[in-house]
Amino acid sequence: MKASRLRQSFEQQAFLKTLGARLTRVTRGKVAIRIEVASPITQQHGFVHAGVVSALADTAAGYAAMTLLADHAEVVTAEFKINFLKPALGKALVAEAQVIRSGRTLSVSRAEVFTVTGSARSHVATLLATIAHLPGPGETAKGRVRT
Amino acid sequence: MKASRLRQSFEQQAFLKTLGARLTRVTRGKVAIRIEVASPITQQHGFVHAGVVSALADTAAGYAAMTLLADHAEVVTAEFKINFLKPALGKALVAEAQVIRSGRTLSVSRAEVFTVTGSARSHVATLLATIAHLPGPGETAKGRVRT
Amino acid sequence: MKASRLRQSFEQQAFLKTLGARLTRVTRGKVAIRIEVASPITQQHGFVHAGVVSALADTAAGYAAMTLLADHAEVVTAEFKINFLKPALGKALVAEAQVIRSGRTLSVSRAEVFTVTGSARSHVATLLATIAHLPGPGETAKGRVRT
Amino acid sequence: MKASRLRQSFEQQAFLKTLGARLTRVTRGKVAIRIEVASPITQQHGFVHAGVVSALADTAAGYAAMTLLADHAEVVTAEFKINFLKPALGKALVAEAQVIRSGRTLSVSRAEVFTVTGSARSHVATLLATIAHLPGPGETAKGRVRT
Repeated sequence: MKASRLRQSFEQQAFLKTLGARLTRVTRGKVAIRIEVASPITQQHGFVHAGVVSALADTAAGYAAMTLLADHAEVVTAEFKINFLKPALGKALVAEAQVIRSGRTLSVSRAEVFTVTGSARSHVATLLATIAHLPGPGETAKGRVRT
Repeated sequence: MKASRLRQSFEQQAFLKTLGARLTRVTRGKVAIRIEVASPITQQHGFVHAGVVSALADTAAGYAAMTLLADHAEVVTAEFKINFLKPALGKALVAEAQVIRSGRTLSVSRAEVFTVTGSARSHVATLLATIAHLPGPGETAKGRVRT
Repeated sequence: MKASRLRQSFEQQAFLKTLGARLTRVTRGKVAIRIEVASPITQQHGFVHAGVVSALADTAAGYAAMTLLADHAEVVTAEFKINFLKPALGKALVAEAQVIRSGRTLSVSRAEVFTVTGSARSHVATLLATIAHLPGPGETAKGRVRT
Repeated sequence: MKASRLRQSFEQQAFLKTLGARLTRVTRGKVAIRIEVASPITQQHGFVHAGVVSALADTAAGYAAMTLLADHAEVVTAEFKINFLKPALGKALVAEAQVIRSGRTLSVSRAEVFTVTGSARSHVATLLATIAHLPGPGETAKGRVRT
């Protein structure tokens, strides 16, 4: 999938816009997303809410899968699991995702979430996701069907 | 934990307020949270973003665990796994959580997420979470330390 | 899928035979498997090894999914997550699985594992699995393709 | 924890012995376990049963966590999630685990499982686990309590 096509999809996500998320890297099999931390996304202890950490990691994992699919393909997260390693306290939150396995109908991606404050990075969460491919009619997510 | 103490904790969560989430049930071992669906929380296909579905389910799972702990206890999600069963399309989103196991230092909770439109309910996600208890000094999350 | 067809598949699993597992219930969307506990499946503290608990729960989850598919369908576990609630100490181990969602290409099943000693049951683990359907050629796992 | 102490614990696991598992690496934060593939651990398609793949990965993840704990510490898997990437077909199965986070009461470990046939390795599964520390009396799993 072309990076421009992927960025177009990203722009249509209202929830990510609400959070102020930006795509900061798109290469084959890898995607990074960044969000500046502000009070609306914190929880009762002042840390970034686990829901935001998860949303960022899941989104990065899904877009990483898309980078290896055909231009018309859509993806949907079938499931994910996330471990929270430390409280997410920092100026910005960065999710870096990579594809572990890109199959015919499913991809498996991993995402690591870091908080960033100046030059300091802290590993705050790790996510493992299964992503289902949604091909258009007469096509597979991996490319046009041979006829 | 008293329901009033739990509601107080809920009110301090800026991210949940941003989403418009409301606690609609608090009983021993069970919590329900509801959110009215509006455009800022949708993704590129018009459905509620998976990140919001996860945040709601995770929050319900954590508060369900708190209902069985001492008043001073805090909890933090160690990890969760969520399966998305159907696209979340509806007027409201409801997460219903219950505790499966309330141990000394960890709880395990499950949450089911439904979309609600009029009288129709659709099961859109299921979450399984491990919640760590954070006791105050000289105490356990299950109650005051015997001396 | 006919129960006889499913039992035939079960009989071909060498690992399950090694463990002495038996299918004790097969109905639409639900399967139970039982195993008598003996020393070869215990771990260093004398409990049933988590690997056996997982294998039993995963197997039950997969067969539960099969009960709702066409006779020719095969399934493969895409992923699962399991929480261990208590040490598995008992005379027998029973896994009870049910389908939560049976889609076109994926099923989601849940399994609960209990130890049984006389009339006492103890809930020792809960599993949530994503199961991929493997249809034969020119068919879908849900039935023959309409032409 | 001393490697000799860890190997002693490994030797007491009857289920692992039944499978023929061997510890092939023990360093700080990393453990590898290997098993030669034979028919008793295969499933109905001739591949290694997912339950064996999981058991191997989970065991490696737990022992990796132990390498960073005090000599007297015991661990128990609170939960794990595993994604199966490819059918496990090969002469041997190797699980390589590393600790991602070693906290006060919980560790998070990741394990990758490979099949090995001659010089060919194939990545067949990835596991992410939460491991609870079980300290002895008057101690923490991270070392003796300061008094």
